[in-house]
Amino acid sequence: MSKANGFVNSWLRHRLVILELLEQLQDEHLDYRPWEKGMSLKELVLHMLQSADMFANSVIAGHFVSPAEPEKAVNTVAELRELAQALTDKNRQSLSSLPDEKFAAMVDVTKPFGRPLSGEVLLQMMRDHEIHHKGQLYTYARIVGVETLPLFVKLQLD
Amino acid sequence: MSKANGFVNSWLRHRLVILELLEQLQDEHLDYRPWEKGMSLKELVLHMLQSADMFANSVIAGHFVSPAEPEKAVNTVAELRELAQALTDKNRQSLSSLPDEKFAAMVDVTKPFGRPLSGEVLLQMMRDHEIHHKGQLYTYARIVGVETLPLFVKLQLD
Repeated sequence: MSKANGFVNSWLRHRLVILELLEQLQDEHLDYRPWEKGMSLKELVLHMLQSADMFANSVIAGHFVSPAEPEKAVNTVAELRELAQALTDKNRQSLSSLPDEKFAAMVDVTKPFGRPLSGEVLLQMMRDHEIHHKGQLYTYARIVGVETLPLFVKLQLD
Repeated sequence: MSKANGFVNSWLRHRLVILELLEQLQDEHLDYRPWEKGMSLKELVLHMLQSADMFANSVIAGHFVSPAEPEKAVNTVAELRELAQALTDKNRQSLSSLPDEKFAAMVDVTKPFGRPLSGEVLLQMMRDHEIHHKGQLYTYARIVGVETLPLFVKLQLD
């Protein structure tokens, strides 16, 4: 397995869980926020999706690529699921063909992170960042009343 | 760097954040739980510590080792910090000398996970599990009133 496929599978073990979790949510959950200065549930999901896209685009480009706002406004869970699926497909496809040398190559991310970091380090941050916020999403989901949630990691990929 | 040291450093980037976060907590926070069937804050921290210890012990032993209960009761944040530091030191030390071949070796974890898994897969689960629950701990901490939290990952190890 190429480095790229190894990474993509290891990231999908978590991303696919987010897609499953979104199936359990309803429109009225989107504006829930557990503390007044915190992200709402919708903002939390958008933050995960846009950050992963930023990490992927930056590693591919070799320099920092600012997170992109969604092209269409997201007001419903159906729209959030649609965006999540589209970005998952896009990032999965673009990262799957990443050449091995991009893992060692330095990426100029001085702007957000204070110094250049290797593609490998940035991809690990992409994955860790997603697991971190997905953990928060589990707590949000439980508080809004979703009791049955998938295991935090997908042990078996289809 | 040996595989063992690479893994230990990558895990410490998250574990050391938990130790920092515990410095911000007070005794009255320990029994907080965000939903009635969820873990209390104290139970969540104990679950992270005991699970990591279980993963580490199982990979070292080559077979499943049940999570151990703390030797002393934990009733205060001071006692929780003491246990967290002791288990961090213990796991850090024992994993640092793990031979390379233990990463490829299969571990009989059929009891908890349904099938044997390699040391490498189990160590990645140990780390992912900790990041997942640390994410939840951030939301717990915010809800009980801790506003200033460290970055979710320690970019620079001392």
